[in-house]
Amino acid sequence: VDELSDLFLGRLVELDETECIELLQSRRVGRAAYCDDQGPVVLPVNHQVVDGAVVFRIPPYSEMAAHLNDRPASYQVDDFDEFRESGWSVLVRGTATYVDPDHLPIQEQRPAPWPRGQRTLNIRITPTTITGRRLLPG
Amino acid sequence: VDELSDLFLGRLVELDETECIELLQSRRVGRAAYCDDQGPVVLPVNHQVVDGAVVFRIPPYSEMAAHLNDRPASYQVDDFDEFRESGWSVLVRGTATYVDPDHLPIQEQRPAPWPRGQRTLNIRITPTTITGRRLLPG
Repeated sequence: VDELSDLFLGRLVELDETECIELLQSRRVGRAAYCDDQGPVVLPVNHQVVDGAVVFRIPPYSEMAAHLNDRPASYQVDDFDEFRESGWSVLVRGTATYVDPDHLPIQEQRPAPWPRGQRTLNIRITPTTITGRRLLPG
Repeated sequence: VDELSDLFLGRLVELDETECIELLQSRRVGRAAYCDDQGPVVLPVNHQVVDGAVVFRIPPYSEMAAHLNDRPASYQVDDFDEFRESGWSVLVRGTATYVDPDHLPIQEQRPAPWPRGQRTLNIRITPTTITGRRLLPG
C-alpha cells in the first residue's frame, strides 16, 4: 500500500450502541444470518425493532425457520454512498427465537414483509452484542 | 394474512447463475460472512469478481482473517427500492482462501478497499453455489 495515497481513503470509526440502534430503526430492510453445516447464510428481510430486539417474519416451513429456533443468529444493516466511498454498517449478534404474535400487540411494531406469501412465523433476534462502524469520506 | 391484500405485495422469483454473477459484478460493496463459535458474522467489504470468484482485501491481523483461511464463507450483495418495495439479492456460498496478490496480475482485478489501513490480505471465496432472488414490485 502506498502510504501517501492511503491518506486519501476514508477512515473507519466505531459507533456506539445508541447510534447503532438508531441506524437499525432507520432502515426497512436488513439481512438475517444463520449458520448451517455448509457455513453462513445471509438473506434480506423486513424488520422492526421492538424493545431493543430485531423482529421479522418468514415462511414457517423454510430452511431459515428451521435454523432460527433458539439458535445463534445475526442481523445486519448498512448503507453506502458509492460516490463518496463512505457509509456505515451495524451488526446485531444474538439468539433467534420464535415469537408469538400476541407478544407484538402494537400494529406498528409488527414486521410487514414486502413479498407476498405465508410469512406467518415471527422471529426475534435478542441481541448479545450490537456493534457498528462508520466509514468517513476520505 | 389477508389473502386479498397479499396480492398487492411483490412476488419473489429465482435468479439464474448468470444473472447473479452480473448483479455481483454491478456492485462495489458486498458483505462477507463467516461463522465463529457465537454464530454468523457479516461485514461489508469492497469486492471484485475474478474468474467467477469473489475477491476482497482485509487486514491480515483481524478476526475475519483468522476465520477465512480455508473455511466455509459466504458473500452477499443486494439492492432495494424502498418506494416500490422491491429489489434483489445474491448469495455466494463457498470456501474462503488466502490469495497471493501475484495471482491477481491485472490491476483492474485487484480489490480496492474504501477504508484506509493495511488491508494487505487478499481473500477469495470460491463458489460452491450462487443463488439469488428478485422481488418484483406488487
